[in-house]
Amino acid sequence: MSSQSDAGRGLGRLLRAPATVTTRLCQAGILILAVWWVFGPLGGVGTTPRDLGEGANDTGPIFNWHPLLMLLAFPVLMGEALLAYRSPAPTLDSRPARKVYHISLQICALALALLGLTAAVRSHTLKLPQPIPNFYSAHSFLGGLVLALFAFQVALGLWAYAWPKLSHPARVTLGPVHTFLGRAILGLGLAAAAVGLQEKATFLQLGAGAGPASAALRLPALLQLLLAAVALGVLWHHVEPARPGPGVVSLAGDGIPLFEQRTPRNSADH
Amino acid sequence: MSSQSDAGRGLGRLLRAPATVTTRLCQAGILILAVWWVFGPLGGVGTTPRDLGEGANDTGPIFNWHPLLMLLAFPVLMGEALLAYRSPAPTLDSRPARKVYHISLQICALALALLGLTAAVRSHTLKLPQPIPNFYSAHSFLGGLVLALFAFQVALGLWAYAWPKLSHPARVTLGPVHTFLGRAILGLGLAAAAVGLQEKATFLQLGAGAGPASAALRLPALLQLLLAAVALGVLWHHVEPARPGPGVVSLAGDGIPLFEQRTPRNSADH
Repeated sequence: MSSQSDAGRGLGRLLRAPATVTTRLCQAGILILAVWWVFGPLGGVGTTPRDLGEGANDTGPIFNWHPLLMLLAFPVLMGEALLAYRSPAPTLDSRPARKVYHISLQICALALALLGLTAAVRSHTLKLPQPIPNFYSAHSFLGGLVLALFAFQVALGLWAYAWPKLSHPARVTLGPVHTFLGRAILGLGLAAAAVGLQEKATFLQLGAGAGPASAALRLPALLQLLLAAVALGVLWHHVEPARPGPGVVSLAGDGIPLFEQRTPRNSADH
Repeated sequence: MSSQSDAGRGLGRLLRAPATVTTRLCQAGILILAVWWVFGPLGGVGTTPRDLGEGANDTGPIFNWHPLLMLLAFPVLMGEALLAYRSPAPTLDSRPARKVYHISLQICALALALLGLTAAVRSHTLKLPQPIPNFYSAHSFLGGLVLALFAFQVALGLWAYAWPKLSHPARVTLGPVHTFLGRAILGLGLAAAAVGLQEKATFLQLGAGAGPASAALRLPALLQLLLAAVALGVLWHHVEPARPGPGVVSLAGDGIPLFEQRTPRNSADH
């Protein structure tokens, strides 16, 4: 069993290390393309509307915080949080250190996502001559669902695991549900981001006349592919190992265990 | 251990049956809303362009097959295929029957998805006075990636499992990768569908002047929420059980095992 397990871990690490590197390259790519898109075709960010005269204004610079903050929150920070227990991170080799890292990243992601929501709502509300309605589009429905689930998950996670109100067996019981919901929120969050990129791209196409091959449309299309790659890359780290048996090799490496094996305090040896 | 396992299965079945029912209600809801949207605000389907005179035509009825076929292929047929080994289906209680059901659903889903792609391309190409360009939007990039992955997965699955070219241990080794890729393709396919719904909705909003509260925009927004619910519902059936231990209860029920436990032929008892 020990040699079987070692072989599985070896192959798992072989496949997991390139997945980790690829995922982080894609996350870096998302940040670069997002900044390029926002500061290029979209015209940059700002905190107040630009007066256009005759009672009209441009709230675009306020809105532009929305894609920047959301793409920082979901594929980058939340993606990293889901890697925290599973990626090869030699500097974080203790479970408590990974737990603090995971919680910190998720709280930052939630805070940035709420700021990102605020930016969109504020840009709609301050728009002149008429405000743009909030929460009517498919993107806003999906995004609202994701933020509600995410806030619930962070609250539940802090209650159950950070200042543990639950017994150790109850935490282990809840474990699969917590990780299921976390993966689901990452997936739905990246889907909501993809939908939002498409919404903005079509607005630019029909409203501002952006051509099919313009950077205004190409950059969000490439961003979507990188979002898909990050989803695949992060969730690959969560593949459960194959059931052990004669000749079976686990393709999924073992990370730091989510729940350490508690040695009984009155154990004789060590 | 036996009593522990029974408790886990009991609770698992308790949680899994309502998840199965809810998922299927959401799948039915998707079909109803898709038909309502296509035959209501979008004006129905057809196989030839409508001549509008002066060298112009309306290829909308050809295009409208695209959302119908894709929403039948991904959330409904592929969703059902991913439930095949995990849902309570008393009429399919043998593993070979579930395998045939799984394979048949996936082949139908792939065929309909390819037909759905054809409908979109044909409607673009036949458009007068000028054809609409293909494969420039974010939706088309993401959808193309999903279809390529899906075709690869079906080919790999048939090769590895249907006419097994792989040994039993090799099939077990590949198992987690096959299910990972299947879940990923479902997730990416539903995301691509959500993006496509948003693209079409924004075209209707800016091109045809559909209002924020019109059925043309409300129906795709509700469809997106149902797509998210189907993703959550199907993947809930794939939650791995909690690690066994004192007091730990598995919230994930056990379905039919993916690989039957082979009893040695020379086994003495039974």
